[in-house]
Amino acid sequence: MKNVTAAILIIGNEILSGRTQDANLAYISQQLLKINIRVMEARIVPDIETEIVGAVNYLRKKYDYLFTTGGIGTTHDDITAASVAKAFGRNVIRDPRAVAILNKHYDGQPGEIRLRMADMPEKADLIINPVSGAPGFQIENVFVLAGVPSIARAMIDGVLDRLQGGDEIYTETISAYVTENSIADEMAKIATFYSQIDIGSYPYFRQGKFGTALVLKGTDKSALDKAAQELRTLIRSQGVDVLVEDESIIC
Amino acid sequence: MKNVTAAILIIGNEILSGRTQDANLAYISQQLLKINIRVMEARIVPDIETEIVGAVNYLRKKYDYLFTTGGIGTTHDDITAASVAKAFGRNVIRDPRAVAILNKHYDGQPGEIRLRMADMPEKADLIINPVSGAPGFQIENVFVLAGVPSIARAMIDGVLDRLQGGDEIYTETISAYVTENSIADEMAKIATFYSQIDIGSYPYFRQGKFGTALVLKGTDKSALDKAAQELRTLIRSQGVDVLVEDESIIC
Repeated sequence: MKNVTAAILIIGNEILSGRTQDANLAYISQQLLKINIRVMEARIVPDIETEIVGAVNYLRKKYDYLFTTGGIGTTHDDITAASVAKAFGRNVIRDPRAVAILNKHYDGQPGEIRLRMADMPEKADLIINPVSGAPGFQIENVFVLAGVPSIARAMIDGVLDRLQGGDEIYTETISAYVTENSIADEMAKIATFYSQIDIGSYPYFRQGKFGTALVLKGTDKSALDKAAQELRTLIRSQGVDVLVEDESIIC
Repeated sequence: MKNVTAAILIIGNEILSGRTQDANLAYISQQLLKINIRVMEARIVPDIETEIVGAVNYLRKKYDYLFTTGGIGTTHDDITAASVAKAFGRNVIRDPRAVAILNKHYDGQPGEIRLRMADMPEKADLIINPVSGAPGFQIENVFVLAGVPSIARAMIDGVLDRLQGGDEIYTETISAYVTENSIADEMAKIATFYSQIDIGSYPYFRQGKFGTALVLKGTDKSALDKAAQELRTLIRSQGVDVLVEDESIIC
């Protein structure tokens, strides 16, 4: 069984201060899940070099892939490229391929300040930015993306085919108007028995009624099917129907 | 100068998988900032005991305060209370004060499963939950809050008066229809000169025009005023007016 993992490192004071709501984590996770890569951890750190270097080095070693967002613009608080270079012990160079992209994007007149967006660690692979030109970059298993959501999304979509996905992760959602409490004990037994399957339990309140969504995930399809069947039987034993519905309406 | 720091630990597979968008970080940060406590780091970890224990022990030692959200319900994937107990080397007990609250909330009939929400580390202080009864808890500098946003918000509001705030953090926002690039170099000099002031630069696109919001923060009011004045002069030197506006409209 091949279990492929990833972490996300969100870089920026504005996320930590609550000024800006992160809009990248959920999108990146969902895209990675489509190729059976699971995000196991995320961190949000300020624009401080030692914090970025420490987090990059910890996360890139612990997980198969690391994706960073933010801090690759042109101002003094954009220190991601230099910090990632430091994490890898590499020099920062003005990448000629990135210079060529910026020249093309700005009709030969990028200007010195925009050209800073071509400064990145030596021997990096570029990540194309179809939205605003300035590329991100990849070093080994670390992918450095922009923070602006439209750009981050285009960048992650563009690198998916560089990633080695894991075994297929099957998922099933079971939703019913039962309270979590009424099924908690029996569900715990099922979760223990099928320990290779993750069973998440998410209570909701909708149309004046309490309900629970159970989300099963795992690479063992046969075990997942059996666990799902036992959960449906458990719910029906409470005299309640299992709902047929799209995952997207779950709270 | 008293600089008081905090970290936030968000616990839950559903946030990492992108199923649920976190809605607590920004609120908690903003409330803490009102009493001059700055959130310096946030982490999102799955419902796995070793991950929670490791993060709690790291963050509670590094920062003045740690706030956790999520994982304090009644089902098998709610392991926050047990994990925090383990981080502190304490036993989990059924807290009699929490039992009394649940009894009152559920008219003397909480039932065995809901009573699990009274299981928490020994010698904890309760955090009142005015929304749905089941309390959170505090051990030393760690505050364990619910994940449901309405409850998390009520809980953080309820504990603010237990926290020791820092020196007043002054903030000023300067916004203008200038591009980041046109002021990046001079701004970097100002940021270096006033190194005790954080100057964040946030570009935006609004009403068909590019603009930049500069956010200054620091405890040295005099330095902040001077830095702000220099930044306004810099913007005006580009032939651009500084906008008078509310922070809330900044992208």
